[in-house]
Amino acid sequence: MKIAVLPGDGIGPEIIAQAQRVLEVLRSDGLPIEMEQAPLGGAAYDEFGHPYPSFTQNLCRDADAVLLGAVGGPQYDNLERALRPERGLLAIRKDLNLFANLRPAILYPELANASTLKPEVVSGLDIMIVRELTGDIYFGQPRGIAVNELGEREAYNTMRYSEGEIRRIAHVAFGIAMKRGKKLCSVDKANVLETTEFWKEIMIDVAREYPQVELSHMYVDNAAMQLVRNPKQFDVMVTGNIFGDILSDEASMLTGSIGMLPSASLDQNNKGLYEPSHGSAPDIAGKDLANPLATILSAAMMLRYTFNQEAAAQRVENAVKTVLAQGYRTADIFETGCEKVSCSGMGNAVVAAL
Amino acid sequence: MKIAVLPGDGIGPEIIAQAQRVLEVLRSDGLPIEMEQAPLGGAAYDEFGHPYPSFTQNLCRDADAVLLGAVGGPQYDNLERALRPERGLLAIRKDLNLFANLRPAILYPELANASTLKPEVVSGLDIMIVRELTGDIYFGQPRGIAVNELGEREAYNTMRYSEGEIRRIAHVAFGIAMKRGKKLCSVDKANVLETTEFWKEIMIDVAREYPQVELSHMYVDNAAMQLVRNPKQFDVMVTGNIFGDILSDEASMLTGSIGMLPSASLDQNNKGLYEPSHGSAPDIAGKDLANPLATILSAAMMLRYTFNQEAAAQRVENAVKTVLAQGYRTADIFETGCEKVSCSGMGNAVVAAL
Ligand SMILES: CC(C)[C@H](C(=O)O)[C@@H](O)C(=O)O
Ligand SMILES: CC(C)[C@H](C(=O)O)[C@@H](O)C(=O)O
Repeated sequence: MKIAVLPGDGIGPEIIAQAQRVLEVLRSDGLPIEMEQAPLGGAAYDEFGHPYPSFTQNLCRDADAVLLGAVGGPQYDNLERALRPERGLLAIRKDLNLFANLRPAILYPELANASTLKPEVVSGLDIMIVRELTGDIYFGQPRGIAVNELGEREAYNTMRYSEGEIRRIAHVAFGIAMKRGKKLCSVDKANVLETTEFWKEIMIDVAREYPQVELSHMYVDNAAMQLVRNPKQFDVMVTGNIFGDILSDEASMLTGSIGMLPSASLDQNNKGLYEPSHGSAPDIAGKDLANPLATILSAAMMLRYTFNQEAAAQRVENAVKTVLAQGYRTADIFETGCEKVSCSGMGNAVVAAL
Repeated sequence: MKIAVLPGDGIGPEIIAQAQRVLEVLRSDGLPIEMEQAPLGGAAYDEFGHPYPSFTQNLCRDADAVLLGAVGGPQYDNLERALRPERGLLAIRKDLNLFANLRPAILYPELANASTLKPEVVSGLDIMIVRELTGDIYFGQPRGIAVNELGEREAYNTMRYSEGEIRRIAHVAFGIAMKRGKKLCSVDKANVLETTEFWKEIMIDVAREYPQVELSHMYVDNAAMQLVRNPKQFDVMVTGNIFGDILSDEASMLTGSIGMLPSASLDQNNKGLYEPSHGSAPDIAGKDLANPLATILSAAMMLRYTFNQEAAAQRVENAVKTVLAQGYRTADIFETGCEKVSCSGMGNAVVAAL
């Protein structure tokens, strides 16, 4: 189990350290885990002058899975586009062909108060958003800023999906729906965009191979509304890269505790990059205040999806449930009556619960 | 004051009838209002075989303003793309050059319970979303479905904005911010899309002409989160066509009472199309159940933006506030303790309050 560990920027190193402690417990209990570190994003620019240097690239290509903290920070805002931290993230996704981004939005009962939505609307929330991650307008050509025939500057990007790209993400989404509530909602804007009309057509075609899954379709504007109106209507959602970027962030915020949400980005063979859904939080970096649970739960997803270690994954997830039940809270999810702990304090609690 | 009235489909005719009654009161009190009807969407397809026939086009071109109900219905779902109701909507926007879509998200104190969000998060909510409406990936060329060099089918659309298109919507947004809280948030995905990087650059340039307005920038995924986390941080938001489609629907649903929300779509000279933010609700069409208030408030926006009749606009808005305070509610916003009224019953109440 070769894991490339990329702490990244901001709170990345702190939260990664706690997830590594968890993986070390599993190793000492017999899992053949090997971990090696490399920089990504701003940290990689500082060390190698590039957000995804070949040192990191080689390590990640060789590894079975990648565990990432987070990238980005204000000190990199004025770098030229190609050198900014998020370029490292886009580059590693494309380089490793991590086309399937899984983003659960789960509300832990103990944290129901953290949501800005009424408890009855979100209690028990458990949505899985499957976002295509290596196509769409993120990578489509042509793109750029140019002077048009009228002598005026204009800018353009290309939304683009091939049949094969849609088919493979459809299979991932239907496969996940089969293991969950067997309901899949495909999100498109088929009334306006040919690309998503095509998306819908392929989804319908792939659905014939999964007769047990109930497939529905929703326009992206309506999906953005329905997530607010009645999020519990959803089981699994599947959509393209840009719509998925927007909707998965909206869905995660419904829980009010984004510091709890992991994510996975998988290739065709379940090699994956695992990272928390939240960002690098430069304002609290280095202060031992961050919530490491999303990163620890990302490590659990890694055990499940890449290494097929369902028992070990559940052991980690149960440890997280235990520490919540015990009342341990980092600052972002703190409520009176609970015990406030630091990032490393939360790591201690999880290790103890394991 | 020449107004083209387009009832459209579903509940359109019912809600339009109540808004017309309101305008007739104002006419009998001296405003030189003239109204003529034409079909749009499915109704136009039924009568003329096209969702935006030349009969309707001529009437709308001649008018100073257009009042629209809503378009769409399941009976049109299997028409070929070019004949579907929403094509009528896209066509009239483009034909009349209605590039500035104003979508307020306002929570009426009496309806605070209708929201799925906690009262403290949304009470007093008053956001104005300015959405560019005639550019972006909605209209960008090239677009289509084709076979690529590898012999595989693929589909594509083009996100595209010229400098002039961005500049004119920027001026509308800054102008509105000047009349409100002087805070403007421009939403982009400048870290990934050149088109929105260009958008941001032009926004910053136009900002120099409005030194009193505080301009901020937010990525679209973060905006989708922040609308859930703390929507009251926003005053005016401005964004492109597709992001605006998604975010304005999300924002309107924060209120829980989308039956209350009007919209305006303006050209360079404040000619405008006014319509409720909600859809054609085919399930309750013809039952005198729909909420006509969003359409009545759309007529108020028309008085304000096209006809510069601020006093008359406020008179209508105050009448709506009065009927809410009196406890009249259509089914969509009904609560125990209030008086349930039909669509026409709500029209009666507003006319009486006027
Ligand atoms: C940082 C950015 C490029 C990235 C994206 O848009 O994919 C982020 O928002 C995400 O969702 O992982
Ligand atoms: C019906 C559809 C074409 C339209 C749009 O996407 O603009 C609608 O969603 C809207 O927002 O008015």
